[in-house]
Amino acid sequence: MKALVYHGPGQKSWEDVPDPKMENSTDAIVKVETTTICGTDLHILKGDVPAVTDGRILGHEGVGVVTEVGPECEKVKVGDRVIISCISKCMQCDFCRSGLTSHCKTLGGIGWIFGHLIDGTQAEYVRVPFADHGLIPLPEGVSAEQGTMLSDILPTGYEIGVLYGGVKDGDVVAVVGSGPVGLAAIMTAGPAGASEVIAVDGNAYRLEEAKKFGATQTVAVGAGVDVVAELKRLSRDGLGVDVAIEAVGLPATFATALDSIRPGGRVANVGVHGKPVEFPIDRDWINNITITTGLVNATSAPALLEKITAGEIDPAKFVTHSFTFDQMIEAYDTFANAASEHALKVIIAA
Amino acid sequence: MKALVYHGPGQKSWEDVPDPKMENSTDAIVKVETTTICGTDLHILKGDVPAVTDGRILGHEGVGVVTEVGPECEKVKVGDRVIISCISKCMQCDFCRSGLTSHCKTLGGIGWIFGHLIDGTQAEYVRVPFADHGLIPLPEGVSAEQGTMLSDILPTGYEIGVLYGGVKDGDVVAVVGSGPVGLAAIMTAGPAGASEVIAVDGNAYRLEEAKKFGATQTVAVGAGVDVVAELKRLSRDGLGVDVAIEAVGLPATFATALDSIRPGGRVANVGVHGKPVEFPIDRDWINNITITTGLVNATSAPALLEKITAGEIDPAKFVTHSFTFDQMIEAYDTFANAASEHALKVIIAA
Repeated sequence: MKALVYHGPGQKSWEDVPDPKMENSTDAIVKVETTTICGTDLHILKGDVPAVTDGRILGHEGVGVVTEVGPECEKVKVGDRVIISCISKCMQCDFCRSGLTSHCKTLGGIGWIFGHLIDGTQAEYVRVPFADHGLIPLPEGVSAEQGTMLSDILPTGYEIGVLYGGVKDGDVVAVVGSGPVGLAAIMTAGPAGASEVIAVDGNAYRLEEAKKFGATQTVAVGAGVDVVAELKRLSRDGLGVDVAIEAVGLPATFATALDSIRPGGRVANVGVHGKPVEFPIDRDWINNITITTGLVNATSAPALLEKITAGEIDPAKFVTHSFTFDQMIEAYDTFANAASEHALKVIIAA
Repeated sequence: MKALVYHGPGQKSWEDVPDPKMENSTDAIVKVETTTICGTDLHILKGDVPAVTDGRILGHEGVGVVTEVGPECEKVKVGDRVIISCISKCMQCDFCRSGLTSHCKTLGGIGWIFGHLIDGTQAEYVRVPFADHGLIPLPEGVSAEQGTMLSDILPTGYEIGVLYGGVKDGDVVAVVGSGPVGLAAIMTAGPAGASEVIAVDGNAYRLEEAKKFGATQTVAVGAGVDVVAELKRLSRDGLGVDVAIEAVGLPATFATALDSIRPGGRVANVGVHGKPVEFPIDRDWINNITITTGLVNATSAPALLEKITAGEIDPAKFVTHSFTFDQMIEAYDTFANAASEHALKVIIAA
């Protein structure tokens, strides 16, 4: 088969590789129909994720059709059209049973293994461990594009932003960063009850997109703009927002989030950070605040599917560019220049 | 009347002052029966709380008898024996109504006003604003000593440590710091469901006390002791504790708390900090952790009273030294040297 293979920092190719083989009785093989590229894949290509080694097939998102199942698969069947969850999970360990599938102990404490510790979904076929738990049936009426957005991006914004942020009815929510994961938080914050969803970004195109995803207000980051003051001005009473979702991963954006919340407020960090941040606990010890972090558990996919079939949300909005598998390198080039290409998520179809 | 009056950094005296007078129709006057001294009072005396000005009567804890009520008091009556909550609250603003009484808007965003913005409880009489909400009837069978511990210390450890820490059945809880507020967390963590409560301190006396308060394990901080490694070793599976309660207020102890929790774990900060801390979010963005901070709301006093009357907890254990009002300065001297005096909380009775 063909697959997108990582060959060390900066090196990748769409090349012939052996088809995946069943390894365990709970595995399935899925013929990939659509996949996409994640910011994490770009980090891997920069060499930021040393656990990914030469020869690894990248990708952890996709929709496909099951072509083979192991004898211990009880739910998933050959011919099922499925969403491939970015998080693999045994559902037996105490972390999985408590909902913390992102840290599945059976998988060594990390549920994200596709395109990381095992071969991934940017390929014609992929082996899926613990297939009963890692594959989600795609209901009639939900497209492959929509389904692919449920592998990772939409659950990440929803679980780690909106749910960890404790968004409730009437909350004023700021989303700092309007890239794909910020937009996923924006899309799901309104249905979770937020009365105002304020998108913050320095990119005018992304702020326009944010409005289509449900932002009720926008704050354009730029010279002379005091973003924190602006967010406080847009809050109910000037005291700050109820929830700030950090969707960038930089010390400055984390500080913006933390500085913008009211007493009793919450910062839900979704961004992937490369440096420590300063936490002014000498100011905040008294402020009854909550800070959360996390890798997606992807346990919300069924609930998000219901919102899609009910017409509440449409994650097909993420898809700005479509490619075929033989255009995989071109898809990467587009996604790597997302800001200038006005790309959100690309879809790559077989 | 006599009262303990602050006269600027390092200056205090037990002196004659005018009796408090009713100022608002929701006020009450309470004749103080017992009061105590808080670490915060020592901070004030160091000049760390500039909002406290020369002439202020200190103290925010106590039990007493109501001697006068304003015409709008509906619940509290003359003759009632009451606990004086350290947090005043209007119960009308949105913060109060959501349970965030520590930030009552009507009081300017801070519910702690006794011995801070208005005269306090280290006096023969005290004026209590919003008396219907700030006074809690002392049930039969609960002593003045026990009641005085419900003004602040026990609710602080319980609400900001145990409840914000989300302690649930079976949790392994580390309490970093076994001073009074750490002991309050230790005392209430077991009844909240913790299977193990690990006390951490550098003072051997306090660790012995911690066992009496419910600690099931202790870690003595000292040269050559890797406290984080020790806490991980004492956790269920070596991965870290479920909840770490920071009850000191220093960068090093905050780091100990943060480094000791497992994926999905929580740090509940109770300590009062004077400096920012570093938050290694480059390590923790992926760990699904929660950090909370807060000033007590003191809304848990009724629930804690039930635990006292049910015999589940006995906060009289805090009281290591007893004084009378005319020994107020001596009481301060003892509390200021708590470690060497083996003092936890002092009680000062009329």
